Amino acid sequence: MKFPQPQTLKQISDLINAEFVGEPDFKILGINEIHVVEHGDIVFVDHPKYYDKALESKASVVLINKEVDCPEGKALLVSEDPFSDFNKITAHFSPFETSHQSLSNSAEIGENTIIQPNVFIGNNVKIGDNCLIHSNVSIYDGVEIGNNVQIHAGTVLGADAFYYKNRPTYHDKLLSGGSIRISDNVEIGALCSIDKGVSGITSIGEGTKIDNQVQVGHDTIIGKKCLIASQTGIAGCVVIEDEVTIWGQVGIASGLTIGKRVVILAQSGISKDLKPDTTYFGTPADDIRKKYRELGYISRIPEIIQKLKNL
Amino acid sequence: MKFPQPQTLKQISDLINAEFVGEPDFKILGINEIHVVEHGDIVFVDHPKYYDKALESKASVVLINKEVDCPEGKALLVSEDPFSDFNKITAHFSPFETSHQSLSNSAEIGENTIIQPNVFIGNNVKIGDNCLIHSNVSIYDGVEIGNNVQIHAGTVLGADAFYYKNRPTYHDKLLSGGSIRISDNVEIGALCSIDKGVSGITSIGEGTKIDNQVQVGHDTIIGKKCLIASQTGIAGCVVIEDEVTIWGQVGIASGLTIGKRVVILAQSGISKDLKPDTTYFGTPADDIRKKYRELGYISRIPEIIQKLKNL
Amino acid sequence: MKFPQPQTLKQISDLINAEFVGEPDFKILGINEIHVVEHGDIVFVDHPKYYDKALESKASVVLINKEVDCPEGKALLVSEDPFSDFNKITAHFSPFETSHQSLSNSAEIGENTIIQPNVFIGNNVKIGDNCLIHSNVSIYDGVEIGNNVQIHAGTVLGADAFYYKNRPTYHDKLLSGGSIRISDNVEIGALCSIDKGVSGITSIGEGTKIDNQVQVGHDTIIGKKCLIASQTGIAGCVVIEDEVTIWGQVGIASGLTIGKRVVILAQSGISKDLKPDTTYFGTPADDIRKKYRELGYISRIPEIIQKLKNL
Repeated sequence: MKFPQPQTLKQISDLINAEFVGEPDFKILGINEIHVVEHGDIVFVDHPKYYDKALESKASVVLINKEVDCPEGKALLVSEDPFSDFNKITAHFSPFETSHQSLSNSAEIGENTIIQPNVFIGNNVKIGDNCLIHSNVSIYDGVEIGNNVQIHAGTVLGADAFYYKNRPTYHDKLLSGGSIRISDNVEIGALCSIDKGVSGITSIGEGTKIDNQVQVGHDTIIGKKCLIASQTGIAGCVVIEDEVTIWGQVGIASGLTIGKRVVILAQSGISKDLKPDTTYFGTPADDIRKKYRELGYISRIPEIIQKLKNL
Repeated sequence: MKFPQPQTLKQISDLINAEFVGEPDFKILGINEIHVVEHGDIVFVDHPKYYDKALESKASVVLINKEVDCPEGKALLVSEDPFSDFNKITAHFSPFETSHQSLSNSAEIGENTIIQPNVFIGNNVKIGDNCLIHSNVSIYDGVEIGNNVQIHAGTVLGADAFYYKNRPTYHDKLLSGGSIRISDNVEIGALCSIDKGVSGITSIGEGTKIDNQVQVGHDTIIGKKCLIASQTGIAGCVVIEDEVTIWGQVGIASGLTIGKRVVILAQSGISKDLKPDTTYFGTPADDIRKKYRELGYISRIPEIIQKLKNL
Repeated sequence: MKFPQPQTLKQISDLINAEFVGEPDFKILGINEIHVVEHGDIVFVDHPKYYDKALESKASVVLINKEVDCPEGKALLVSEDPFSDFNKITAHFSPFETSHQSLSNSAEIGENTIIQPNVFIGNNVKIGDNCLIHSNVSIYDGVEIGNNVQIHAGTVLGADAFYYKNRPTYHDKLLSGGSIRISDNVEIGALCSIDKGVSGITSIGEGTKIDNQVQVGHDTIIGKKCLIASQTGIAGCVVIEDEVTIWGQVGIASGLTIGKRVVILAQSGISKDLKPDTTYFGTPADDIRKKYRELGYISRIPEIIQKLKNL
């Protein structure tokens, strides 16, 4: 998430009431999670295990819960609770804005784009040319949609990430200040949910086609010309490369990478990165040849038992 | 389901055209299914297998399809078809009311609660303070929602139980006269469906967080501070105790109890009660250590076959 | 898909700019895919493997990408790209019509039918008597619904088939010109998606009850008095015969036939036709007795390993 305009270290320090290490007018462009952080951004870290990763990242400012040595060319924000401060910053620069009408005045809608009845389009949404948005679709604030995109009825673009920190007596929600980008020639079926990024962009690549009732988690990046069949669930922070085919009711755990041209058969459960140009099946999934061999072995158990008896 | 005001045995007997055993002015407070029945309620039973359970329950009146001895302090309603008569009573005291506008006049909505566009809020719905109801949400009549609750777009609260009696030529629906109670600090994702109770209350406990596309069946009770990930399906009459974590695409069959702090891994299928403080995986699910051992054993079959050959 | 009025071979040839073999005034009634084609229809075929099937089908006209001998009594349309020409014909006779209001003027709605708020009803939709359509339901153009049908909130009837031809640089969509027919006494839960047929009719038989979040693909035919539980996904072109019971989160692959009175247990994955009067379980699914035996065999592997050690 980039700020609407650059901030100084002093300004952010005042906003979250944190100590800072660095020049007061050190320029800050935005705030992002570690996996999408860029030069100019704040990154937050609250566990010693990840201190080095944050301090060595591309981030220009590290929001951290311990006073450590400040790497050269960077600045620090030292706070007792970086998670809460991340939320304060998100809430300040990306506050929720109530909508009073179904189609926001600040939405930009391209030529020859059809918006069917009962659609909700939030603030600052951008939709390209020649799109068709079917009835009862919900598009949250800030979502960007390219040209020649079709979205079927009831689909929801931009709900919050399902991301909580486990506090002793409650789940503390990480606010979502990110967004969604849908590229040209994408088609999304009915009743899909695609969550916005926490700080980054959930994105669907050019020409990808998604069937009904598919779930795509926050910050997930789906490549070009993929096919994703009905009721598949893709968690947050997944990377799906180009031309991947996913059949129905597949589940993919968070943070994984699915290589180019992978095919995942129906109902598979993916808990590891998948190699390109390979077909997978099962829960936990494996290369389909290995999986079929395994099924063959299981079917031979009665024969094994018989052989043992005959010995 | 409680009646708007107490009824007499005679009044209910007239309504459903059934014989009664007991004082005509015996007071009746409501009607409930066996698992939620309380003193003052009618319970219905139409299978001899369950007669004793109904007669010995907390129910004050038993609606039954055989004239049996009336337990002391109770009354009977004797009818050929208690299932249909249960429906007659539900339809009389909890009739469907058509809505002519998106936000019912009888709905009570708290302070600082935001209702986004295209939301439907039915009759007698109560929503607390500081809630955020996103676009295209549907809230059926009578649903109660606490404070600081967020419900994402497209979610449906209060559809009917999926509960049918198999008659020779058709499925006979048990009408749903119950409701839903969502406690404080709950968050529900996009495109979830939570069914109302048949006679009781489907309830979501304080601080529980539910991801997108989750299904919760009628009369299910979910405890406090649970996390339920996307595309999980929970059948009717399930009890989920506090601090349970359920990952994506899990299925839980009806009537089960999931103990405190249980963790269920993604895509698992639960067909038995689960013990507290344990992690489960698989379909049918088992303790994860047992399940991993099983996967290890399967991988050893080729070695077993080889050993047998070498003998 | 039937044309609004009969066309001649010459007219269609001009429309798609194809050569024709046959009398110019040869009468054509419609266009259909091979599995639903009837006398009077065009069928399309673009792979030599299926030429014979198309030429020997009930089709009166074969739209084909090679000049072959024309069977007696039939006609040919010869084109380089029958897939694209099928789309041209669909787009011409069944063009998408924008809706400017939630309830179309051309929709026919029966007596005592209740339409709750925020429902979208497209052009030429027909709904029978005594139906109840809950809030935020979307019904695309041309869908037909019988009497005494209840449809719960958020459900989508009539989104397009998920059907693409893999071209070198993009997925080419087969347009859906078919429709949906929901018979009398059907109940459909919340947030279900039922896709229209590509050229035929997706249909739900009399008295069938469908739970929440169920997906039904294009051209699928579901029989009478079936029960389909929550989160089940049924692909396109499936035939489900009468009185079938499907429990939650089941997946059924495209083109299969599920015999009468079959029971499919929860989370099963169906990749073969299923025989009538049988209960199935597992992924890939099998007769439940065989499947339980298999689970029993797996549990005996440790014992096998021990025996081998003792030899």
